[in-house]
Amino acid sequence: MTAKGQFITFEGTEGVGKSTQLANAAETLRNLGVEVLVTREPGGTPMAEAIRELLLAPRDEPVHEITELLLMFAARAQHLHTRILPALNAGQWVLCDRFTDATFAYQGGGRGVPEDRIALLENLVQGDVRPDHVIVLDAPVDTGMARARRRGELDRFEQEDLDFFQRIRNVYLARAMAQPSRYHMVDAARPLAQVSGHVSGLLRQWVSGSEVL
Amino acid sequence: MTAKGQFITFEGTEGVGKSTQLANAAETLRNLGVEVLVTREPGGTPMAEAIRELLLAPRDEPVHEITELLLMFAARAQHLHTRILPALNAGQWVLCDRFTDATFAYQGGGRGVPEDRIALLENLVQGDVRPDHVIVLDAPVDTGMARARRRGELDRFEQEDLDFFQRIRNVYLARAMAQPSRYHMVDAARPLAQVSGHVSGLLRQWVSGSEVL
Repeated sequence: MTAKGQFITFEGTEGVGKSTQLANAAETLRNLGVEVLVTREPGGTPMAEAIRELLLAPRDEPVHEITELLLMFAARAQHLHTRILPALNAGQWVLCDRFTDATFAYQGGGRGVPEDRIALLENLVQGDVRPDHVIVLDAPVDTGMARARRRGELDRFEQEDLDFFQRIRNVYLARAMAQPSRYHMVDAARPLAQVSGHVSGLLRQWVSGSEVL
Repeated sequence: MTAKGQFITFEGTEGVGKSTQLANAAETLRNLGVEVLVTREPGGTPMAEAIRELLLAPRDEPVHEITELLLMFAARAQHLHTRILPALNAGQWVLCDRFTDATFAYQGGGRGVPEDRIALLENLVQGDVRPDHVIVLDAPVDTGMARARRRGELDRFEQEDLDFFQRIRNVYLARAMAQPSRYHMVDAARPLAQVSGHVSGLLRQWVSGSEVL
């Protein structure tokens, strides 16, 4: 029987370098002979990507906060049950760009949706599935936003103000402090080589940990 | 202050004549001087209609039952909070082609999603909002399916088998029996004039009831 893979998520506000660190992490794991699935939320399957488009497209109609929340979890249900869990059960490690922590941060901290509503949907969709490790890439909000703006056109979330992203960052920090064994803060304001070294180091540690078990 | 409008939903399996009876009901109300909003689920706003398209399009990817359930309620949250409730508060009567009873019938009875999960989302999205009256158009499943097939191409739901629709009909019957004051069974297998007469009669009764109060 193949050992179950580990489920590792990458979180952080806009422009902290999640894509770069996902690629770095995938390379680190592959060099260690680990099979890897790299995926993202919202999205990860054709249907979930269609939901992502609905969520991110700027639109005239104001989107009700509960609509947004349910669309996020609809995409997550599809992604988790048809892609992530089958990969983990086949022994692959899954690296995912955002997961439910992003919902607590964006819809909870950003939009003000009560935490217990999000937790209720988390349990409905995930049962007791949680990421094995959450890597929180952290940088001051204005640094990240300046990077995101340089990338070009902003989506419906990126159009929010600095205060919105500060609330998001605060939720990530609070969640990381509450569960330090599962959450790993990475200072993403440092030079890229240092950030990448930190992330690769974590992954190497988890791979040797999983071999010992 | 304008009196609050009444919220009336039309339910039933495929091909029972919901569209015809919605039009008949709207005409009856307008002839009595009542302002009417005719709408449908899933849908009713541009964003909710986009979710409807995601839900109904036949696709290769199997749609997880929780994905389907959350998309239904995402569309409902948008429709209820941005369209239905504002209309009711402005004194309009709202006639809606399907609502949450359809979720209990299709996703619950049809797909086998446990009723308590649906009830949990009903409370999350609607609070204590429920239709004032539910008109259940009832006909044997094979009669209705034959009519639906004559309309042309079938959507992802209409492609299901007779047993699926029998389970749906059973849920509607059970819900109507459990709350006879709010649910109104209409035998839709009768000639159209009789069905329309029954529906118009109910609406006239509710309008005079609302004037007395």
